[in-house]
Amino acid sequence: MNIEMIRAAAQRLEGQARRTPLLNSAFVDEIAGRRVWVKAEALQHTGSFKFRGGWSAVSALAAEVRSAGVIAYSSGNHAQGVALAARLHGVPAVIVMPKDAPRLKVENTRALGAEVILYDRDHEDREAIGAALAEARGLSLIKPYDAPEVIAGQGTCGLEIAAQAAEVGIAKADVLVCCGGGGLTSGVALALEQEAPDMRVRPVEPVDFDDVTRSLQSGRRESNTRSGGSICDAIVTRSPGEMTFPLMHELCGPGIVVPEEDCLRAISVAFSRFKLVLEPGGAIALAAALYHGEQLSGEHVICIASGGNIDAQMFTRALETYPSP
Amino acid sequence: MNIEMIRAAAQRLEGQARRTPLLNSAFVDEIAGRRVWVKAEALQHTGSFKFRGGWSAVSALAAEVRSAGVIAYSSGNHAQGVALAARLHGVPAVIVMPKDAPRLKVENTRALGAEVILYDRDHEDREAIGAALAEARGLSLIKPYDAPEVIAGQGTCGLEIAAQAAEVGIAKADVLVCCGGGGLTSGVALALEQEAPDMRVRPVEPVDFDDVTRSLQSGRRESNTRSGGSICDAIVTRSPGEMTFPLMHELCGPGIVVPEEDCLRAISVAFSRFKLVLEPGGAIALAAALYHGEQLSGEHVICIASGGNIDAQMFTRALETYPSP
Repeated sequence: MNIEMIRAAAQRLEGQARRTPLLNSAFVDEIAGRRVWVKAEALQHTGSFKFRGGWSAVSALAAEVRSAGVIAYSSGNHAQGVALAARLHGVPAVIVMPKDAPRLKVENTRALGAEVILYDRDHEDREAIGAALAEARGLSLIKPYDAPEVIAGQGTCGLEIAAQAAEVGIAKADVLVCCGGGGLTSGVALALEQEAPDMRVRPVEPVDFDDVTRSLQSGRRESNTRSGGSICDAIVTRSPGEMTFPLMHELCGPGIVVPEEDCLRAISVAFSRFKLVLEPGGAIALAAALYHGEQLSGEHVICIASGGNIDAQMFTRALETYPSP
Repeated sequence: MNIEMIRAAAQRLEGQARRTPLLNSAFVDEIAGRRVWVKAEALQHTGSFKFRGGWSAVSALAAEVRSAGVIAYSSGNHAQGVALAARLHGVPAVIVMPKDAPRLKVENTRALGAEVILYDRDHEDREAIGAALAEARGLSLIKPYDAPEVIAGQGTCGLEIAAQAAEVGIAKADVLVCCGGGGLTSGVALALEQEAPDMRVRPVEPVDFDDVTRSLQSGRRESNTRSGGSICDAIVTRSPGEMTFPLMHELCGPGIVVPEEDCLRAISVAFSRFKLVLEPGGAIALAAALYHGEQLSGEHVICIASGGNIDAQMFTRALETYPSP
């Protein structure tokens, strides 16, 4: 993994992925007590940054391999990113999704032309299911994070952050990244190491799913005991990736652990101040900036708002429970 | 009014206004039966395109005139745009707002440092109030639409649309613009006349507030009988502007009149498909594209999603009443 792979991915993504805006608001700065910048990846195609990694990986396959189709396992955002990337390449996609994934994500993945196969998160191993299907049908497995081309694709978000921060005169900041398996976190950290070396990436996780934070402390890959049941479904994995963890360990600052309810509060703030729809996992970095600023340093904080695939019911709950100031 | 004034405004807005993205979604194309492109002005500073006109007008004042302060009358979005532009210039702002304006807009305007004066929409004349205050305190009146520098500022949105459409290969399209007094509509029409002459601007208005549509038919400025009570509060004016109407009459295609409920449906679609928060008046152009396509022609339609300053209660009502497909 190196910066050249991220730059090559950025070239393949040119004209395909959106250069999402970097938003700010004086009202939000006031809540946080510092300047807050939000990289609005919820505005990315399919509603999350995952389209970057999906396109990067699918476009990197040799044409004759790609034509047989691709397969992915995902709670929903990677699913949609891979499904759309496959459709735009004109190749079939099979997506293995947990039965308790949000309905909207399952429906969207199907509507994007993918064949969806549901599995039981507690009793089945999605990696085994994915590998078996891949072999049986000659499909290329697009892993959600432990794959160089996927990490490179997510890293393009970091290249944009470096450029957009420079445009507004920011060289030094904590960069908060929601963290599941670590694909986005490690890709962005690699990009910023080169392009904005005074920025420090901080993984953000929900309480009870803080495997990355604990792993960074212990220096080895720790696991969560729970496998699901978080409203931050998009960023729940059992442990950091084999490939992503060494990168995070080398490049990232300490993790930040945030109660789920703070994600709902941040959703309400993003609604009223950025006019942006975020899902709980997509709001967790903003939640850290707003409500856990004592763990940050410096004048500026950049938060990746990684996704907005949320059911209306959950969104309404956030607005009603936490009316925005 | 001419294109050079819009280009000059664009230069003054450089680094101040956001270049908002032009979004699309295969799901939305399917509902509309053609390619739909959404210019996401809800992501503009203060949550609507009005910051463009506000900054343009305030920045065009001579420094010694500007220093005495500015005044504006507005149901809320122009208020916030002018208030922020004044604050960023370090000069005082007085905003005259109707008593029934959304609470959020009044609060935001105050929080942006402006002095807010409330009036009764049915029994008082906001223009008279504004003019009297302006004279008494030496303030410069920033009109909401009938002012060249305001029209020029809104027109910068048209310059961006022309450039962004060209980037994705679109030269010909109907461009749907929510229309109150006609500042945005006439500014965008002027910009596109020069920069994308095969595009045709179509004003969009709510049922019962179709003064512009009727004026374009009759060739003279018609008035609405109702003065308020629309959920599209941002785009309700009594009649088209003296300055904006001749421009619209010369440059625009026929108006489109949309039931209010369609705006709520479009809000729900923008929530699930674009991850964008829109207010009813800001969703009306998208509503026209989605549900009144028989009045359009051609493969592409571009909709300005002009603002997102909506109370949580109204937003929740839209999501609950019209679950997005």
